[in-house]
Amino acid sequence: MSLPAGFRAAGIRAGIKPSGKPDLALLVSDVPLAWALTTTQNRFVAACVTRARNLYATERPLRALVVNAGNANCATGEQGARDDAAMAERVARQLDGHAAQPITAADVFTASTGVIGVPLPMPAVEQGIDAAAAHLDADGAAAFANAIRTTDLTEKRFSADVPGGARIVGIAKGSGMIHPNMATMLAFVLTDARIDQPSLRALWPGIVDDTFNQVTVDGDTSTNDMALVTASGVLDVDPRDLAAGLRSVATQLAESIAADGEGATTLLRITVTGAASGAEARLAARGVASSSLVKAAMHGRDPNWGRILSAAGQSGVTMDADTARVVLQGHPVYAGRPLDIDAKRVSSDMNAKVIEIHLDLAAGSGEGRAWGCDLTTQYVHINADYTT
Amino acid sequence: MSLPAGFRAAGIRAGIKPSGKPDLALLVSDVPLAWALTTTQNRFVAACVTRARNLYATERPLRALVVNAGNANCATGEQGARDDAAMAERVARQLDGHAAQPITAADVFTASTGVIGVPLPMPAVEQGIDAAAAHLDADGAAAFANAIRTTDLTEKRFSADVPGGARIVGIAKGSGMIHPNMATMLAFVLTDARIDQPSLRALWPGIVDDTFNQVTVDGDTSTNDMALVTASGVLDVDPRDLAAGLRSVATQLAESIAADGEGATTLLRITVTGAASGAEARLAARGVASSSLVKAAMHGRDPNWGRILSAAGQSGVTMDADTARVVLQGHPVYAGRPLDIDAKRVSSDMNAKVIEIHLDLAAGSGEGRAWGCDLTTQYVHINADYTT
Repeated sequence: MSLPAGFRAAGIRAGIKPSGKPDLALLVSDVPLAWALTTTQNRFVAACVTRARNLYATERPLRALVVNAGNANCATGEQGARDDAAMAERVARQLDGHAAQPITAADVFTASTGVIGVPLPMPAVEQGIDAAAAHLDADGAAAFANAIRTTDLTEKRFSADVPGGARIVGIAKGSGMIHPNMATMLAFVLTDARIDQPSLRALWPGIVDDTFNQVTVDGDTSTNDMALVTASGVLDVDPRDLAAGLRSVATQLAESIAADGEGATTLLRITVTGAASGAEARLAARGVASSSLVKAAMHGRDPNWGRILSAAGQSGVTMDADTARVVLQGHPVYAGRPLDIDAKRVSSDMNAKVIEIHLDLAAGSGEGRAWGCDLTTQYVHINADYTT
Repeated sequence: MSLPAGFRAAGIRAGIKPSGKPDLALLVSDVPLAWALTTTQNRFVAACVTRARNLYATERPLRALVVNAGNANCATGEQGARDDAAMAERVARQLDGHAAQPITAADVFTASTGVIGVPLPMPAVEQGIDAAAAHLDADGAAAFANAIRTTDLTEKRFSADVPGGARIVGIAKGSGMIHPNMATMLAFVLTDARIDQPSLRALWPGIVDDTFNQVTVDGDTSTNDMALVTASGVLDVDPRDLAAGLRSVATQLAESIAADGEGATTLLRITVTGAASGAEARLAARGVASSSLVKAAMHGRDPNWGRILSAAGQSGVTMDADTARVVLQGHPVYAGRPLDIDAKRVSSDMNAKVIEIHLDLAAGSGEGRAWGCDLTTQYVHINADYTT
């Protein structure tokens, strides 16, 4: 998969992961990048999140992006902040001579994912950055995507072409668990389309709210979650086409993250209509996607409309059980009252890689989606049996 | 276990549960009862919840309490409301002649728990009420407690004696799952102490906030949850003693509900100190108790302070990872930074029926507790493998 014009990337083995798998990813742009970012809402955040927020406030464009997997550099105190800054400095020093325009540490975005409470192995990180800089390639998207994985079972990469010749590539890592801590979602969306930074920053939060923020695997958000979009501005496109392309790539990434939830056997795609507002629709959809009882029922391929309605009700949205409707994998199962269904047939149709849950709240015209996965014994094994 | 003075109770087999186990409980007081109630915050509620809220608004005292297990009478439309009212009417008709003062349907509190979306089997319910009325007994607390169980593994009954001779008895059912739907928490606390209804109604919500509302098994609240306290007013006591007794019984009931969470092997008791406020302490404690990652780690007896801090951070409370502290089963494991611990020894000490998690947020003087349980493969089996 080729990157948008002017981007080069690499992913290499730096020796941060004990497994020896690729764990350092680098990306550089020939030209300054407009960017927009959303970060975790967790109050307990890693050094890279703090640094990213500070960089963001400067409104300076970006030039490069360095990501390490295997160590989240979180709960590492002042040493962690220094190590994070040193990553950016090393990247700037490596790239400065090779680019048309000078690159400084303040042009470099950093991200980390992995174990928390352990200092970054800086010699390995710095040598890794040097090695990655020597492997930068316009076809490096796959290597980049591979190197940011933790226990993700699948690589998460999607692209879209924008009318007018621009290209969007999105790369993410998802709900893989890094021993001994929580899953981190990192998403990087790159485009060569032209969009000024204020417009991009106005556009991105709405897309993230509809996509990445509607993904739930187990309700836990990480200390390191970030979703970044950057635009090099090489190609002029219709802003509506660009927005649609970004939304499409973000949706595919979000869905792939949910589908690869730990231990999951099926993706849950929840669509809520008839809500009092879009926000209530998203809230209800997220409530259904994150209900342990719904997730376990979906694992059992149980057409359990009661748990779906109850999870929506628990989210606090306006709804009325006498008028709400539930359609499960295309089968109406509840319409103000339980419908006569062939439970075996519905259950059999739920034996799929995707289970579609449609809930109409009959309270307005708000719509929203959320993505989740089933709750399995494998999830418990993954998260209980690896001990510190 | 004897009931407070003036109360009689019974629990019998009405044939509502397919298992044939006891499923109908009745309680009556010789005198009118002051009462206070909290109900589920789920927007999707059962007929009995709607009726209870309406009764509550009348401020009339109660005389009797009827509870059925095996059927939640929820998502049953207008028929459900009629059936619920008919339960109260049947109780009033049965008891009216036998009591010193007349009893009408408006004196009777109703509660249901069990499967949703199925009409109540009214002939069985009504015959059950008649049978229960014939078995009312001052020693009926155990029979009552047994008849409101669903898949609770343990009976939940606690008592306290209040200086001055008054008695408090609390009875609850917890997180047992009724096929095919969600768990319901019902709690009934009875006392013969004197307290006027406005004072009781002012007192109860604070106790419930600190106890029942701090219990989480899987984050799902039911359509039927209710916590009721009633006082017959026979004995004068110091209001502070009464409040302490009610709080003690409610705490024990809450803890027993969490300990009996589906598939649980250990109770999690989370204490948060140093929060910016009591509300933030309760929020953080609940966040830790309800985190799937924490719950799974505790199942694995993994001293995973990272997941505990992250779960607290996710709750949105004020905290600082550089000053926060975590003590796990008596072992300090984090104090602004990870502490050197003998992980095997901590893990070994976590092999207990209760795991104590203490988190100090170093942000103020707010304190709060929450109770939860570990997440096990058995939880997934229970909730995935029983299909509709």
